[in-house]
Amino acid sequence: MIIVVSPEAAPADIDRIVARIEESGRQAHLSIGTERTIIGVIGPDLPQLQDMFETMAHVESVHRVTKPYKLVSREFQPRDTVIDIGKGVTIGGNTLAVMAGPCSIEDEDHVVGTALAVRDAGANILRGGAFKPRSSPYAFRGLGEEGLRHLAHAGRVSGLPVITELMSVRDIDAVAKYADIIQIGARNMQNFMLLDEVGKLKKPVMIKRALSGQIEEWLLAAEYVLAQGNPSVMLCERGIRTFETAYRNTFDINAIPLVKELSHLPVIADPSHGTGKHALVTPVACAAIAAGADGLMIEVHPSPDHALSDGAQSLTYAGFQSMMRAVSGIAAAVERSLTPPLVHA
Amino acid sequence: MIIVVSPEAAPADIDRIVARIEESGRQAHLSIGTERTIIGVIGPDLPQLQDMFETMAHVESVHRVTKPYKLVSREFQPRDTVIDIGKGVTIGGNTLAVMAGPCSIEDEDHVVGTALAVRDAGANILRGGAFKPRSSPYAFRGLGEEGLRHLAHAGRVSGLPVITELMSVRDIDAVAKYADIIQIGARNMQNFMLLDEVGKLKKPVMIKRALSGQIEEWLLAAEYVLAQGNPSVMLCERGIRTFETAYRNTFDINAIPLVKELSHLPVIADPSHGTGKHALVTPVACAAIAAGADGLMIEVHPSPDHALSDGAQSLTYAGFQSMMRAVSGIAAAVERSLTPPLVHA
Amino acid sequence: MIIVVSPEAAPADIDRIVARIEESGRQAHLSIGTERTIIGVIGPDLPQLQDMFETMAHVESVHRVTKPYKLVSREFQPRDTVIDIGKGVTIGGNTLAVMAGPCSIEDEDHVVGTALAVRDAGANILRGGAFKPRSSPYAFRGLGEEGLRHLAHAGRVSGLPVITELMSVRDIDAVAKYADIIQIGARNMQNFMLLDEVGKLKKPVMIKRALSGQIEEWLLAAEYVLAQGNPSVMLCERGIRTFETAYRNTFDINAIPLVKELSHLPVIADPSHGTGKHALVTPVACAAIAAGADGLMIEVHPSPDHALSDGAQSLTYAGFQSMMRAVSGIAAAVERSLTPPLVHA
Amino acid sequence: MIIVVSPEAAPADIDRIVARIEESGRQAHLSIGTERTIIGVIGPDLPQLQDMFETMAHVESVHRVTKPYKLVSREFQPRDTVIDIGKGVTIGGNTLAVMAGPCSIEDEDHVVGTALAVRDAGANILRGGAFKPRSSPYAFRGLGEEGLRHLAHAGRVSGLPVITELMSVRDIDAVAKYADIIQIGARNMQNFMLLDEVGKLKKPVMIKRALSGQIEEWLLAAEYVLAQGNPSVMLCERGIRTFETAYRNTFDINAIPLVKELSHLPVIADPSHGTGKHALVTPVACAAIAAGADGLMIEVHPSPDHALSDGAQSLTYAGFQSMMRAVSGIAAAVERSLTPPLVHA
Repeated sequence: MIIVVSPEAAPADIDRIVARIEESGRQAHLSIGTERTIIGVIGPDLPQLQDMFETMAHVESVHRVTKPYKLVSREFQPRDTVIDIGKGVTIGGNTLAVMAGPCSIEDEDHVVGTALAVRDAGANILRGGAFKPRSSPYAFRGLGEEGLRHLAHAGRVSGLPVITELMSVRDIDAVAKYADIIQIGARNMQNFMLLDEVGKLKKPVMIKRALSGQIEEWLLAAEYVLAQGNPSVMLCERGIRTFETAYRNTFDINAIPLVKELSHLPVIADPSHGTGKHALVTPVACAAIAAGADGLMIEVHPSPDHALSDGAQSLTYAGFQSMMRAVSGIAAAVERSLTPPLVHA
Repeated sequence: MIIVVSPEAAPADIDRIVARIEESGRQAHLSIGTERTIIGVIGPDLPQLQDMFETMAHVESVHRVTKPYKLVSREFQPRDTVIDIGKGVTIGGNTLAVMAGPCSIEDEDHVVGTALAVRDAGANILRGGAFKPRSSPYAFRGLGEEGLRHLAHAGRVSGLPVITELMSVRDIDAVAKYADIIQIGARNMQNFMLLDEVGKLKKPVMIKRALSGQIEEWLLAAEYVLAQGNPSVMLCERGIRTFETAYRNTFDINAIPLVKELSHLPVIADPSHGTGKHALVTPVACAAIAAGADGLMIEVHPSPDHALSDGAQSLTYAGFQSMMRAVSGIAAAVERSLTPPLVHA
Repeated sequence: MIIVVSPEAAPADIDRIVARIEESGRQAHLSIGTERTIIGVIGPDLPQLQDMFETMAHVESVHRVTKPYKLVSREFQPRDTVIDIGKGVTIGGNTLAVMAGPCSIEDEDHVVGTALAVRDAGANILRGGAFKPRSSPYAFRGLGEEGLRHLAHAGRVSGLPVITELMSVRDIDAVAKYADIIQIGARNMQNFMLLDEVGKLKKPVMIKRALSGQIEEWLLAAEYVLAQGNPSVMLCERGIRTFETAYRNTFDINAIPLVKELSHLPVIADPSHGTGKHALVTPVACAAIAAGADGLMIEVHPSPDHALSDGAQSLTYAGFQSMMRAVSGIAAAVERSLTPPLVHA
Repeated sequence: MIIVVSPEAAPADIDRIVARIEESGRQAHLSIGTERTIIGVIGPDLPQLQDMFETMAHVESVHRVTKPYKLVSREFQPRDTVIDIGKGVTIGGNTLAVMAGPCSIEDEDHVVGTALAVRDAGANILRGGAFKPRSSPYAFRGLGEEGLRHLAHAGRVSGLPVITELMSVRDIDAVAKYADIIQIGARNMQNFMLLDEVGKLKKPVMIKRALSGQIEEWLLAAEYVLAQGNPSVMLCERGIRTFETAYRNTFDINAIPLVKELSHLPVIADPSHGTGKHALVTPVACAAIAAGADGLMIEVHPSPDHALSDGAQSLTYAGFQSMMRAVSGIAAAVERSLTPPLVHA
């Protein structure tokens, strides 16, 4: 940590700052400049120390010099993490992960039908929500455990591993029983107790970025899970909240290469939530793969104008097939591949 | 709801939209303009319907005309909600609520000392965190239930009711046992299961606005609690996340009069988090009261440069006394009052 | 400036960084920590140097330690700047400046009528736009020089000094001829050539903050004017652009005390643009004065539903009188005063 | 336009709203719903009318139903605009535009050397700044007209057309004399007088998106130029300002397909400013082309740690060659092509 001293500080003021540093068990290293005195603090950067030093008289600013996360960093593990999901699927390697399916699970036929359709178009993981976070208490909030059973059934029928959202510690056993990957939603990125609990499981976890989550906070959310002993974490960029009202969220394409540089964890892109408009899903999916994403998460519904949630951003079956053809060309250009589709529409 | 039809739509396209509206159990009312056809949808506005209509071919845009919340609205209840906290304190009436105390409870002496100091300066509610949301898994995360006991003890010694944060359904019994007001933190504003559960209690609840929470989402979070049967809800503006890096958060002063106009619920201002800088706490506290806030939440620490969290935004005892004198003048100007202080520093 | 070296850097890499620092005419001061080497750069912080150092191999981050502005800073001039506008009005002293009038000047009778109404209610400066920045080329863009003549006439009739916006170097002579204060609008906060030109005048200048202008950029915009020799600059907070859609802009109340701390220049608050909703103007005006603003800028129109621009945020005459009564109580609480009104409505 | 009437409005209140609509020369069409009365306003949507109606008593909200721009819209011109720049280069067709060169022109040798290097790697347009907008008055602000002459010379030597920024009406003749494309910078996106003036020229114009420019405002900026008679306009996405501090700007990938859907104008991507970090330039350039951009604008400098501006985001010659190879594969995947490079590094 580096402390910049205010220009008006007298030698006795600087001595008090140095004494406070030494009281914290660290060493102070002074550097006298032409306009400012700078103190290097030698020793580990605890988060609360920065705050403490900032409040001292005659301290102008405090700068952290080390990153606050460790286990998730490239410095700690230079090679890419590759996560084995089972059923022949891995995430983070050469083959892209394509998670597709309905926003909400509406009934068994619906999710089975969608599972087969997306599998045949080349998806290798089935998504579907049984517990749905909804802004309004009066909106459809999902089928709960019944939905999980439908999803698991559709997974068996299609042969695809499944991912679904866990919203509360209350449901952790049920979700862990049925899901191959546990999704932590954007609104729970900083639900720290939930992160602790999934950190104690042996299941892969995908953490979506919060609507206003900074990259550093997102990596720290992953650090919570790794710190509990679960190394199978992937991150999912799903758009951030900005001043722009032309789309529901603003997909942050910069995040993809930056997170890949800072961390060894796989990064998935969700252009359905990242745009909120079905017409933008394919170009943004292509962009994400071109920028280095390890996979996609896509909402698909047989009849979006009858979907119980997120219809505006869902692709039809034909729309999804068309997206997969477009993504396939981009994947080849960046030397990645898709699971071969079973249909050729 | 109003549906604006794309200009290129043929009569048969409009017929299909009308048929979909009628399929949803609503009626369609057509209005043919010079450039666009507009369809009024007669019947209740369910959240998912807007999405469904937006996905239809030849629909250019869909506009909601009713607000998505009901119980929290001024239309539903024109008079102000006044919440009786016990120990002679009410929130939402003429006397301002002043919640003050440490960010984190560090030990029993610390919280008792702070309780007496803030009470003597005119605070009427004691705040203190036992469960602390922290971005880093390596930061101090609070004393847990031991902290709750210290807080309750300090409440008894000082005669002040206490408020503390509930982070997880797991801790609801413990927090409800010790706290007079349950705080839902900014990161949990959309933790919908937690909102459901505090809605089933008989305790007052304070909901902090999320870092990127829109006013409508914040009111809907309160709607979750009221919809479960708990009418004792207050809202707390604590700053939003913007592009500005000169402060930790940007206190949204507009939110105070707007929420008071849209809703009957009391609104508390937290200038400690809303600025993140102790030098800005007093002017922003004065501003909030001038704009119509029903109270303040303020972090106070005997020695901020030794605080285990949020030192940078904490006031010393002397700083808090000075803030209370400044607020007192503003309160009088808006015909509100403070609990008289026991000390005259 | 402080350079943090990447942990993997070898001694020869550090030598190359030091050589580059010395090439720039500065000295390097090394500090070897447990995890990182830090280099203090002794000598002036030029803006481009930070960029240059950031691009070097093995540089992890570069931290500026001095502020990039000088003449506008409190360090440079500890006492408050007080600007004499003429006609008995000063800005920055004990008496608050209240600039009121129409958004656009529509005709002579309109601006004269409004001038008399706002003067009688206690305004001491008349505002009115002759050149209007409008998002659409098809909107009303102001009367131009004819509007300036009407404004100056209304100033003479009412005895009030006038403020109006300068949008382009082309109109500088005309605006300087008629205006007592030249306003630089939010969209021109970083129109650097315009700032240079008003810096060469002897007229007071008010610089509005850009929609996404950071505090530091805003102070640097003022620095442009002072650097050319014009010390009579005031700043105007008018709301920033955020994710919130419930109001046109988000008034940044934090900016007022922070700018007063960092700079000696007067700060004016514009709650009309800062909220975009007339119902919020009075509470936010009160808040701004409570937080330490030196004055207000308020849009007033005799019949807002006939205004050619910004009707939604304009106060009627009665609304302005009512606002002035509310502000008057707050002003007294912070030991400031208003020009006494001529009417008692 | 659609006016939603407040639920408490009496018939006489609605009559007053209808009378105001008719006074504006439009017709009112009433639609009585179960909870609200809605009034369709038949006639053109002028921007000021929305404001006027919003201020009326008993008006709850006003919704625009037509877009505020016309000439730039796909509705007005369904086919893509293709702009002929001269020297064999067109923008908006099958071949991608690649504008590359230094941020600032530093001297003649520097710009000639860079021109040859980028041409040889496949760039088909030379960029370089002679007038530089800089936050600080003490930073290097460009060589001015001398810089324009160096740029034009480098254009002749390399055979490339040139693009450079126009910051002020004062310099319009000089810039128009030397440049093949005139760039309007992000800070001038809403400098409406400058837009009017370039609208009167016969030169192609590129308009960068403002730091907080909404898509609609950006399209309206282009509408200003087209409305004056100049149809040769392209748009440039260069990143927006968000809460994220890990990069200088957040490149808005969603904007590319959305603007292509709403407008017929070509869209260029600037990943150098859109990220502010050289390590992110190549992946974001690839993403932009994958999402449908018509070209790229890239900062290149022979020695970025000696650049007089924006070194942190500049590519070296080798970095640019490497980027072009990566982009080339993506271009092929979306059936676009690059000008063949002269070197094969």
